[in-house]
Amino acid sequence: MTSPLNVHHDVAPLNQGCKTLSVALSGKSHSYPISIGSIGTHSLSQLGGWLQTVTTLKPTGKVLIVTDETVGALYAQFITASIKESYPSATLQLLSLPAGESAKQLDTLTTILTAAQALSLTRSDLLIALGGGVIGDMAGFAASIYYRGVPFVQVPTTLLAMVDSSVGGKVAINFKEVKNGLGQFYQPIGVFIDVATLETLPQREQLAGLAEIVKYGLIERSALGLSVLDTNQPSSQLSASSFWENLATLDSNWREAIVDLIASSCYIKAQVVMRDEQELAPATDATGRVCLNLGHTFAHAYEAALGYGTLLHGEAVAIGLMQATWLSETLGLLNQSTVKTIETLMNALNLYPITLPNHVAKPPCPEQLLQLMGKDKKVTTTGKLRLVLPVEPLGTVVVQEGVPIEAVKQVLLRYF
Amino acid sequence: MTSPLNVHHDVAPLNQGCKTLSVALSGKSHSYPISIGSIGTHSLSQLGGWLQTVTTLKPTGKVLIVTDETVGALYAQFITASIKESYPSATLQLLSLPAGESAKQLDTLTTILTAAQALSLTRSDLLIALGGGVIGDMAGFAASIYYRGVPFVQVPTTLLAMVDSSVGGKVAINFKEVKNGLGQFYQPIGVFIDVATLETLPQREQLAGLAEIVKYGLIERSALGLSVLDTNQPSSQLSASSFWENLATLDSNWREAIVDLIASSCYIKAQVVMRDEQELAPATDATGRVCLNLGHTFAHAYEAALGYGTLLHGEAVAIGLMQATWLSETLGLLNQSTVKTIETLMNALNLYPITLPNHVAKPPCPEQLLQLMGKDKKVTTTGKLRLVLPVEPLGTVVVQEGVPIEAVKQVLLRYF
Repeated sequence: MTSPLNVHHDVAPLNQGCKTLSVALSGKSHSYPISIGSIGTHSLSQLGGWLQTVTTLKPTGKVLIVTDETVGALYAQFITASIKESYPSATLQLLSLPAGESAKQLDTLTTILTAAQALSLTRSDLLIALGGGVIGDMAGFAASIYYRGVPFVQVPTTLLAMVDSSVGGKVAINFKEVKNGLGQFYQPIGVFIDVATLETLPQREQLAGLAEIVKYGLIERSALGLSVLDTNQPSSQLSASSFWENLATLDSNWREAIVDLIASSCYIKAQVVMRDEQELAPATDATGRVCLNLGHTFAHAYEAALGYGTLLHGEAVAIGLMQATWLSETLGLLNQSTVKTIETLMNALNLYPITLPNHVAKPPCPEQLLQLMGKDKKVTTTGKLRLVLPVEPLGTVVVQEGVPIEAVKQVLLRYF
Repeated sequence: MTSPLNVHHDVAPLNQGCKTLSVALSGKSHSYPISIGSIGTHSLSQLGGWLQTVTTLKPTGKVLIVTDETVGALYAQFITASIKESYPSATLQLLSLPAGESAKQLDTLTTILTAAQALSLTRSDLLIALGGGVIGDMAGFAASIYYRGVPFVQVPTTLLAMVDSSVGGKVAINFKEVKNGLGQFYQPIGVFIDVATLETLPQREQLAGLAEIVKYGLIERSALGLSVLDTNQPSSQLSASSFWENLATLDSNWREAIVDLIASSCYIKAQVVMRDEQELAPATDATGRVCLNLGHTFAHAYEAALGYGTLLHGEAVAIGLMQATWLSETLGLLNQSTVKTIETLMNALNLYPITLPNHVAKPPCPEQLLQLMGKDKKVTTTGKLRLVLPVEPLGTVVVQEGVPIEAVKQVLLRYF
């Protein structure tokens, strides 16, 4: 499979086949690299050398590695060995937290902050988040508020974290019933992706990551600002539908395409983040950060209603993408044939195009979901629902104001 | 008494005699006004009208007023009445927290966040911090992380908060033994100062605020970038020594000069903040935000050693200013006559030029203080002390690297 997007202009060789994208932020935020290791090699063992190129960590610096029990058992040894090799005089501390979304709350955040304090971590030192989105969000939030901000590096080990949460600087924990209710915009000083870690990723989590990649296909034209352009792109530039077309040909061999898919997804997200780092664009501007929210108002409600941890975030996003699609069809924003195309891909990827995942015993009732959707921070305060929805042509989204509650309810009932 | 600094270029009439300074921040941060009511009127009753000029709060918006039990009992009624008058359809919630520095910790922060959540506060709503530095720091920190940031207004009611903590965007709570160990840079959308609230301020707190004002006198030349300029300033500009000279003539009637002193202090601090909003200037650059730290490494150690709440922050700063002065004398950075001048002013203001405050039963031992100073985030990680110290001429500071521990210890012993 060829590169689904022409990202080669942004890719420079790092070492041993790594690809590097750059997220260039203006103003007070720094720019930082996203390095993606090549398939077939375990690039985690090169982390120490990479740190020397992207951080100002001193030889005698301190490093707090935050991970979870699952990921730590598999990969912490490679990281610590690599850092010890590059920084023989550094002080390393490994903090292993309970795995799962249910750990993403204030008590666990306090555990990280306490560990940083016990290590006497300073702004000259480094915090590394090794794990999925929960670890990245939580460790990043800890880094953002500890001493008003210490440097941190994201080492995502799930497909979802690689293409979504590790890029863009949103760090957070859940608070009460609100997902990511407490948080910040705080950029890492680098993202280091070892695709080989995906080999130990459970199938459920692989699928969950694919859901977020499908999202990039659905927002691609909006995210890249292509919706207003003609389809006759110069060949050196992006083709509006290429990412989606490549997605649509995915089959059981998708792992072979994973480096390109990750790079393309990071590229699309980075474009949005560079344009609207802190979500300051109007909430009605679909070229702003809000476009990344496609499917997420649904997803957050399902996650909260079922109890955090029941659904993986990506599973909830897959559900949300389908519901957004059906809602667009109801509102006359999508043709039936386009809806069919989306359903076909979701079906091919086993991404719940008709029923909820098997492990969901009982679907939440629509009234509860609607109430939770009203609490989501992306929704207007007046009670009317504002949602990001897919429109024609495929790959384009709009921010739809005043969506009728009844139409949303009918869509929710399709999973009931 | 005339205005100690020529701030009139930055002062525009607001209403009924208010003075307004502007803090103009670049990049992604907004600019915001500091409005100072005139002496003799209770401008809190004008807060609602002022909010209409500086916020985008909707008529049906929600307002969470965070205060402490002491201040709330005295002044919350004026604020709520004024807001209700200007926003009859708004939802107001008053949250009254325990008073004092000991409340400035994670549990109380969680109480604020929980109240915001219970009120379903959104980014379109408003949080108001009514009180001293503890309330302002803590409520501001809550505003900064709740839903990745909601708008907030500072209404400082102590002299210390008016001239220091409410200006500059540092928000924080204490964590473990470290003062402000968790925090952010997060700017309010406005600061509203009613000097009449000082009438109910206990004398201890008045003195504590004066200590921070004296600090501005000691850093004035550095803060305003005057240290490299000649003394022959055009008359329309600032005179290098004017603020200090006016300070030196203060007597028991200092309250009459308070509006000018507050305006001048805010002006000096705003200059520094505008130059170095996020403390990104090198830690060795005395024109950066680090200059505001004069006396504070000592102060933080005393506050922690005696237990937060034993000393008021300003009392600790007064002690720290004296110790920094004596340390400079020891290191040959200050003439004996200048030291005498500082001691004389501190003596006239009853700011502990010789002994600790009477309510300190037993001074902390120097070893404990030195250990705590080593934990302060402003100190280098290598164990050597880096301190902001006053130098000649009066009003100038430098960042002194590698200060001998023994010299610091001798200075600490002067209060033992």
